[in-house]
Amino acid sequence: MENFADRLNQAIRDRKTPACVGLDPVLARLPKTVCAEYPMENGRTSAAAVNAIVAFGRGVIEAVAPLVPVMKINVAFFEAYGGRGVDAYRELIGVARRAGLLTIGDVKRGDIGHSSAAYAQGQLAGGDAPDAITVNPYLGLDGVKPFIDVCREEGKGIFSLVQTSNESASAVQDVRLESGETVAAHVGGLVNDWAGDEQLMGSAGYSAVGAVVSPRDVAGADGLRTILRRCIFLVPGYGAQGQSAGRVAHCFKEDGSGAIVNSSRGVIYAHANDRYAELAASGWQKCVEAACQDFVADLDRVQNR
Amino acid sequence: MENFADRLNQAIRDRKTPACVGLDPVLARLPKTVCAEYPMENGRTSAAAVNAIVAFGRGVIEAVAPLVPVMKINVAFFEAYGGRGVDAYRELIGVARRAGLLTIGDVKRGDIGHSSAAYAQGQLAGGDAPDAITVNPYLGLDGVKPFIDVCREEGKGIFSLVQTSNESASAVQDVRLESGETVAAHVGGLVNDWAGDEQLMGSAGYSAVGAVVSPRDVAGADGLRTILRRCIFLVPGYGAQGQSAGRVAHCFKEDGSGAIVNSSRGVIYAHANDRYAELAASGWQKCVEAACQDFVADLDRVQNR
Repeated sequence: MENFADRLNQAIRDRKTPACVGLDPVLARLPKTVCAEYPMENGRTSAAAVNAIVAFGRGVIEAVAPLVPVMKINVAFFEAYGGRGVDAYRELIGVARRAGLLTIGDVKRGDIGHSSAAYAQGQLAGGDAPDAITVNPYLGLDGVKPFIDVCREEGKGIFSLVQTSNESASAVQDVRLESGETVAAHVGGLVNDWAGDEQLMGSAGYSAVGAVVSPRDVAGADGLRTILRRCIFLVPGYGAQGQSAGRVAHCFKEDGSGAIVNSSRGVIYAHANDRYAELAASGWQKCVEAACQDFVADLDRVQNR
Repeated sequence: MENFADRLNQAIRDRKTPACVGLDPVLARLPKTVCAEYPMENGRTSAAAVNAIVAFGRGVIEAVAPLVPVMKINVAFFEAYGGRGVDAYRELIGVARRAGLLTIGDVKRGDIGHSSAAYAQGQLAGGDAPDAITVNPYLGLDGVKPFIDVCREEGKGIFSLVQTSNESASAVQDVRLESGETVAAHVGGLVNDWAGDEQLMGSAGYSAVGAVVSPRDVAGADGLRTILRRCIFLVPGYGAQGQSAGRVAHCFKEDGSGAIVNSSRGVIYAHANDRYAELAASGWQKCVEAACQDFVADLDRVQNR
C-alpha cells in the first residue's frame, strides 16, 4: 500500500499536470445525444436517468483519462437517484480507476467518531472505494480520525475542507479569532497537525491528509499554503466557479508542487460552450477532450510561472 | 404543508415527551435472534446484512412509535452497504412515518450551493424523504440555502450542527473569536438569522430551521439557548454518549419547550443491557420498549424541573 500522497505526486509527474476533472452530472445539462439513448419516464428515480448519467460519465472518463492524473466525482449528484444512483457513483469510480485515473470521492462526510467510522467503511475503505474522499472538519479530530485510520491502513487519502470556494463561506471561515488568525487558518493548523502522523507522510514531505483550499481569498490562500505545508491542496472553483489560473497559482508551493486543481463544469459540459462549437460535429467527447486540453494548458502556464 | 416546527411541537404535545429515538444499526450489535433469520455470507455487501438491519429497524420502530414523537435515523450506518443500504435507509424512513413518527435523516450534508441543491433534492425533497435532516454549516449560508428552500416549499425542517457532543469538537467549536464569543456561538448566531425568514417561522416562535446543540459544554449550551431563540434544538449524546438528563436540561427554554433529546444506543441495544435482562425472555423488543419508557421518564423529570 503505497502512500496516497506519493501515488498522487507520481501520477501528476506521469501526466505532467496537476489538473483534476470533476464529474458533477446534472441530467438537464447532458448532451442530447446521450439522453436520447435513455428515454426518461419516471422522473428522478428513473433507471433511464441513471443509465444516461453513467453513459455520460463513461464518455467523460474515456476523453480525459489520457490527459489528467485524477478525477473527482461528487456523490451529491448521484444521491438524488437513491440507491441506484449511489451504485452508479461507485460504478464510475471503478471505471475511472480502470482507465488509469486516481479517484477522489467528493462526499464531504463528517460525524462523531462512532458514525464517522461507519462512513469511513462505506465511503473510503476497500478496493472498490475511491482512492481519497473529501471530509468536513467541523467536528474536530474524532470526526476525521476514522477516515485517517483507513488512510493509514489502506494507502488512501482525505482532503479536509479548510477554505471553500463559495462567497458566503467567509461568514464562517474568514472570521477572526482572538489570536488574530481566521477560522480557516485555525482549522488549517489542525489539519496540518493531523497530517503529520509519520505513517501518513509520503517521501516528498506531503501527507495522505490533504486540504480543500480555494483561492477565493488570495491572501488567505497564501497564508494557508504556509500553514499547511504537509498538505496537498485540492483546489476547487476553477472555471465555472470563477477562479482564474492566476488566482489558483497561490495554492502551489514555489517549486510548483502541492496542489491539484479541479475543473468540473468547464470541462464536462464543453459541448454547450460556443468555444468548442466547431468540434461538436465530431461528437461531444471531442469537446470535452479539447476543453480538458485547454484546462491543462492554462494550468501549465501557471505552474511554470 | 404545515410548518415543520409546528408539526414537531404538536407531536411532542401528543406524545407528552420531547424524546427522540436514534437508529444507528451496527450489525455486530443486533439481537442474535434477528441475525439468525438472515445468515451472512458475503460481508458488507450482503443482502442478508441489510435485511437483518431492516428487520431490526422495523422492530425498533414498532416498539417505540407509541412512546415518542420522532425518530432520527443515521444514514452513515446504511451507506456502508452501498446502494442497497441507502434504499434500506429510505425504506425505514417510510416505515417510521407510517407508524406515526416524525423522521429526521441524520445525514450531516453540506456543500457549495450547486452541490447542496443536489443533496437537498436527494435527501430532503419529496414525500418519501425524511421530515427533516441534519446539515453542516461550515460552508456558510449558500451551503445551507438549498435545504432551507425545500423547508419553505415542502414544510420540511433542518437541524444545523452548532455544538456537537464529541470532546474533540472543542478544538474547532469552542475557540474564541476577537469578539469574545466562541465559534459555536458565532455559528449559532448565523443559524438563528437563517431561521428568521418569516416563511420558516411557525406559530410558537420556532422556525423550521433548528440546531444540533449538545450540552457537552453546559455554559456554552446556556449561551446558545439564548442566541438561538428561534431554533428547536436536536440534542445528541444522551445515554451512550454520556450526557445526563440534568445536563440536557440546559437545552430547553424555561417553559420546557425548544428541544428534542436523542438517545440511540441506550434504547435500541437494550437487549444487551443487564438492566433489562429479565425482559429479554419476552423478546428484544420488550427491552427496547422498557428502555424507551425509562428514557422518556428521565426526560420528564428534567422538563418539569
